[in-house]
Amino acid sequence: MTKYIKKIHEVTVDDLVEGIVNGNRVMLAQAITLVESNASRHFEKAQKIIEHLLQKENTSIRIGITGVPGAGKSTFIDAFGTYLTNNGYKVAVLAVDPSSQVSKGSIMGDKTRMERLSKDPNAFIRPSPSGGNLGGVSRKTRETIFLCEAAGYNVILVETMGVGQGEFVVRDMVDFFLLLVLTGAGDELQTMKKGIMELPDLVVVNKADGDNLHKANVAKRDYNTILHFLHSYTKGWTTRALTASAVQETGIDEIWKVIQDFEIKTKTSSVFDQVRSEQQRKWLYTLVEQELYKVFYDHPSIKQKLPILEEAIVKGEKTVSASAVNLLEAFFNKAKEF
Amino acid sequence: MTKYIKKIHEVTVDDLVEGIVNGNRVMLAQAITLVESNASRHFEKAQKIIEHLLQKENTSIRIGITGVPGAGKSTFIDAFGTYLTNNGYKVAVLAVDPSSQVSKGSIMGDKTRMERLSKDPNAFIRPSPSGGNLGGVSRKTRETIFLCEAAGYNVILVETMGVGQGEFVVRDMVDFFLLLVLTGAGDELQTMKKGIMELPDLVVVNKADGDNLHKANVAKRDYNTILHFLHSYTKGWTTRALTASAVQETGIDEIWKVIQDFEIKTKTSSVFDQVRSEQQRKWLYTLVEQELYKVFYDHPSIKQKLPILEEAIVKGEKTVSASAVNLLEAFFNKAKEF
Repeated sequence: MTKYIKKIHEVTVDDLVEGIVNGNRVMLAQAITLVESNASRHFEKAQKIIEHLLQKENTSIRIGITGVPGAGKSTFIDAFGTYLTNNGYKVAVLAVDPSSQVSKGSIMGDKTRMERLSKDPNAFIRPSPSGGNLGGVSRKTRETIFLCEAAGYNVILVETMGVGQGEFVVRDMVDFFLLLVLTGAGDELQTMKKGIMELPDLVVVNKADGDNLHKANVAKRDYNTILHFLHSYTKGWTTRALTASAVQETGIDEIWKVIQDFEIKTKTSSVFDQVRSEQQRKWLYTLVEQELYKVFYDHPSIKQKLPILEEAIVKGEKTVSASAVNLLEAFFNKAKEF
Repeated sequence: MTKYIKKIHEVTVDDLVEGIVNGNRVMLAQAITLVESNASRHFEKAQKIIEHLLQKENTSIRIGITGVPGAGKSTFIDAFGTYLTNNGYKVAVLAVDPSSQVSKGSIMGDKTRMERLSKDPNAFIRPSPSGGNLGGVSRKTRETIFLCEAAGYNVILVETMGVGQGEFVVRDMVDFFLLLVLTGAGDELQTMKKGIMELPDLVVVNKADGDNLHKANVAKRDYNTILHFLHSYTKGWTTRALTASAVQETGIDEIWKVIQDFEIKTKTSSVFDQVRSEQQRKWLYTLVEQELYKVFYDHPSIKQKLPILEEAIVKGEKTVSASAVNLLEAFFNKAKEF
């Protein structure tokens, strides 16, 4: 019986809303499970919870963290998160991994990855939802951010994991984006994805300790040179590079000072709120357009015609414009027959 | 009467196809006018012409040319195009200007802009089609490239003009992309659009003459440093910077050597053909999706609901996910009633 009454469908929307507002971690986790579910009745319940919480004042800062392979992201988040809870903040760590097929299983992984933070009562760690596609993972993470904020977490760290376009998706859901790199700017930049260097508000050269210190300072200078030639992502803000050592916990306070400075500047200029509103609008359009694509490309007529037309185009037997007209006619004529 | 028989609707598809294959410039211009027309009967006629010409062997190279303001694009194209016709090539110069509302009027402009080339019997200059939107301009320019190639033009220069995202659209329709810059890499890069530096296969520092020569060489070195840190657009090719002077006609032969080297390398590796096929496929998807958006966002229910929902979202009264579901239901329910 004990097991039975804990099941998600037994807990009401009101229970969950009240639990979240009171900072009940179990209720928060259950609400997130609803948000992450692919079942439509869970979707509706989750939307109701979010709607109930919408009016709540929000003073959090959302920080995206990405890094080159081997940059020591987990150690960095562990040190940075602990620094923040030591300074009185409540920290939520969420992950976005479009390639993740695991859900609850990776909690164990996170406990090992972030040893101190996973035991910290003022930290809440949630692994990436398994979503199948980036759109699904993106929706689930955005709504989880919202739930964590309603539960009183005021620093949200969203880390990108795995392969794919996660960085671009996370950039669109955070206020501040931090790129963690290593020494050797030239080699690293060559292996980074196109356009990534134009996303961050701060570049941190990690592992600036011991024998590595000199190399880290050279890398910092190189990154600052490159950044000078690139666009800063956030209007009115100049992205620059710093050094830090997550292991020795040096440079962490300076990073937090930069983020606080960013928050003050962008709130004064209204850029902070403008960006959040724009992110919401963009997300609405993205969701709608993704669904529209899905309906179109899943349509039996399109599934049948598209590969045939693609081949004909590449072989030079059909024009692209005529093929497009063909596909759209097939879709909208059939749609009428529903 | 003479005027009457020249009217477009009097000339048959066969006349136009034959005229184009025989290199008749008047027929080529008339076919392009059909391609550029927004009337649906002209669209169908244009598609028939293109279909008739599809099987023709194609050995052209398509070169996109863009430049920072004041880089001397017109003078460069005039010098470069003349160099090519002097070397036995037939050159077509097309423009892509998403902001253009003029059509035939700007021919005069092009005559002044490219004085020698506009009088050259082996050059064909066509101003940007007025399209209203980038998708329209893109379709028209792609089909015009195709018609010019069928008419025997073997070097196609596509220049980007005006404001907007023209560079990205042109990149997707050419084999080789050339970015024309001036001295002062740092200042220039700051004012360039995001991501532009990752598009070119060659950067040319123009106006490398007289007192400017030293500064141009410094800029060349700076651009090469930056390029080293960025991704090259074309697989297996390293983008670099050169200097040239369009006015003194120096460096032009070296640019052409680079382009020929590019053609040989990418044809040997099959990248050349792969990119062209991929461009066709991508264009099909873009056309279809643009039309799908248009139908959706022009739908009366969506036009009515969207601004209300956007406002509610920004005010924190509605969730994005629920709003998206709302819009999609409105669209597909109404679509059934057609």
